[in-house]
Amino acid sequence: MTSDGLYYLDHAAATPVDERVLAEMQPYFGERFFNPSSPYAPAVAVRRDYFDAKARLAHTFGAKADEIIITAGATESINLAFSAVTGHVVISAIEHDAVVAAAKRHSHTLVAPTEKGIITPEAVGAAITPDTELVSVQLANNEIGTIQPVRQIAEKIRTIQAARLKENNKRPLALHCDASQGFGQIDIHTARLGIDLLTLNAGKMYGPKQVGLLWVRPGVHVEPLIVGGGQERGLRSGTENVAGTIGFAKAAELADRHRKSEAERLSKLRDTMEQTLANAFKQAVVSGHPKKRLPGSLHISMPGLDAERLVFALEQRGVMLATGSACAANKNTRSHVLTALGMSDELADGSLRLTFGRLSNEENCRQAAAIIVEEVKKEYERVGRA
Amino acid sequence: MTSDGLYYLDHAAATPVDERVLAEMQPYFGERFFNPSSPYAPAVAVRRDYFDAKARLAHTFGAKADEIIITAGATESINLAFSAVTGHVVISAIEHDAVVAAAKRHSHTLVAPTEKGIITPEAVGAAITPDTELVSVQLANNEIGTIQPVRQIAEKIRTIQAARLKENNKRPLALHCDASQGFGQIDIHTARLGIDLLTLNAGKMYGPKQVGLLWVRPGVHVEPLIVGGGQERGLRSGTENVAGTIGFAKAAELADRHRKSEAERLSKLRDTMEQTLANAFKQAVVSGHPKKRLPGSLHISMPGLDAERLVFALEQRGVMLATGSACAANKNTRSHVLTALGMSDELADGSLRLTFGRLSNEENCRQAAAIIVEEVKKEYERVGRA
Repeated sequence: MTSDGLYYLDHAAATPVDERVLAEMQPYFGERFFNPSSPYAPAVAVRRDYFDAKARLAHTFGAKADEIIITAGATESINLAFSAVTGHVVISAIEHDAVVAAAKRHSHTLVAPTEKGIITPEAVGAAITPDTELVSVQLANNEIGTIQPVRQIAEKIRTIQAARLKENNKRPLALHCDASQGFGQIDIHTARLGIDLLTLNAGKMYGPKQVGLLWVRPGVHVEPLIVGGGQERGLRSGTENVAGTIGFAKAAELADRHRKSEAERLSKLRDTMEQTLANAFKQAVVSGHPKKRLPGSLHISMPGLDAERLVFALEQRGVMLATGSACAANKNTRSHVLTALGMSDELADGSLRLTFGRLSNEENCRQAAAIIVEEVKKEYERVGRA
Repeated sequence: MTSDGLYYLDHAAATPVDERVLAEMQPYFGERFFNPSSPYAPAVAVRRDYFDAKARLAHTFGAKADEIIITAGATESINLAFSAVTGHVVISAIEHDAVVAAAKRHSHTLVAPTEKGIITPEAVGAAITPDTELVSVQLANNEIGTIQPVRQIAEKIRTIQAARLKENNKRPLALHCDASQGFGQIDIHTARLGIDLLTLNAGKMYGPKQVGLLWVRPGVHVEPLIVGGGQERGLRSGTENVAGTIGFAKAAELADRHRKSEAERLSKLRDTMEQTLANAFKQAVVSGHPKKRLPGSLHISMPGLDAERLVFALEQRGVMLATGSACAANKNTRSHVLTALGMSDELADGSLRLTFGRLSNEENCRQAAAIIVEEVKKEYERVGRA
């Protein structure tokens, strides 16, 4: 997908559509273009294909077709997860911008992470008030890769729910998990996680962009953001995204099927890169939890350097990586995630995010590592800290 | 796109993606997959391509790139157009389900059409109260094809605005036009229409599905439905739909370039079909305005017949068309459009919608007409009204 001499280390920002995914989508742009609501047989067949794809997609994370709402991406899914809330919400302080923005529309409390970026069940429990209706904690952080103890947080919430019932407090209390990052690298299963709402994003798992889903546990209430023809059981109107959903299903199946081997492969590539950089620069600081971390994720800070300059220098040599997260990259503000971790400005400003994926292999990672070492050395020489 | 022996006469429900459109989208699924917010050069190039596509797209209807918000389709655009309303809204009684549903979230008044489906400026003016903030009138009806006098309605609204200012009523009053139907068949130009908000849908003009736009005249206020990373000037967050927008721009350019010749071609095909059916069945009733009608649109009722039975009989012979609109087709309810026109139940229940487009040509329309005549005759014989 990338040519020789191009080293893509930013899989958390975007992934190409897998060729097998695109091949499954193609017929729905052309000969199977019919509106799934039309009455004639070829359209009814498209409708069947659509629901079949939803079922296969849902199956990859232990859910059923009629429990998922197809959206135009994780941002819409997240907004939809917050749609029915009238009370207080609790989110982690290191959520994606979309969760932060959705929470700001409500009375909200931010839960601070530990230094390694972990959101503890105790901290979540302490933030929940009798008015809290929704807790939102990401599965894995998009900047530092830390994986959250979602299952334990869910158990904490169940305990609080039980106590509420005893006090006759009937306010709903749901746990939403934004799992935009991590599908295909770690286990994502609604029952094992114990969650009520789940956001997934096709565009981050080699599926089509602008396609996402919100899984809603039966019994949990959400309100439609977009009303009209009543598609998606009235929860998200608009002609169904048939091609996108077919692609999403294939992408999820591929990611799920190869999860264990891919996680192992990415983790080796990441560890080799981490060791190479840590050996070359004793002052380098790796952030996030050393073990509870996405296999394909590396966040490393070069104190005293300007990461933006580094990104541009590296780009000249074909290495593509991020400073902080891509979402915040063009805003010239410090990442709220790094601030919440208590990272010093010097470390934050010198931080690089490398995310490995299907475009990564031993050869191109070895070459990229050599280029990064050279360019970081040059920068340290330039600022007189070599 | 359809094989021999298949006659698609339902272009208002869905159009295939034009091969030239798909060809322009393809690179953005693969080698140009980058996140437009990422800082390295290949991503910056994608960002440039995205804004260039928005500019080309906006240009086709006399607007500028930063005046349009890319959405996941007309339904979302319509919901966004209504997002800032706190007061009263006025809509025509024959709007698309999405406009009806969005209006129902507010205090609203429905404006009845004339028998031919025209919404007169006088009727709109009479429905506007001092609290009205938004008027929504479609450019052309999706069921009967009637084209509305949008420019004259806009002038009426300007007059009312002027009167309001004299009375020191500073409530905004905007005109939204849902032009999901008609692009590529009739002139759509924001200044010539005199509107404030415009909804367009790529999926109805041989572009990708689940891609739409809302044009917002500078100075008109909308509130984001979906918050997050702040894309689309904060009005619609989520990673930009690069491939979809590139496709939308190409689709709009193609439709705009060939508009006049295509309108003439479709109008001939439609008129021939109409004459064939009207000659064969003297009792047939054509609805909508005879002249102010989309060139590719024909709504015809066969009194005493069950249109649903007809659609299934026709489908067996490869003819695909609609009863009422596709959106409502699977709900077993009578079309609110036909009800608003005052159509009798007998006529409504026997009504067929035929919409012509790029898959239509003289040969397949002639064959389809012959099949429809045969099947309608059979049905009339069956019910003993031959």
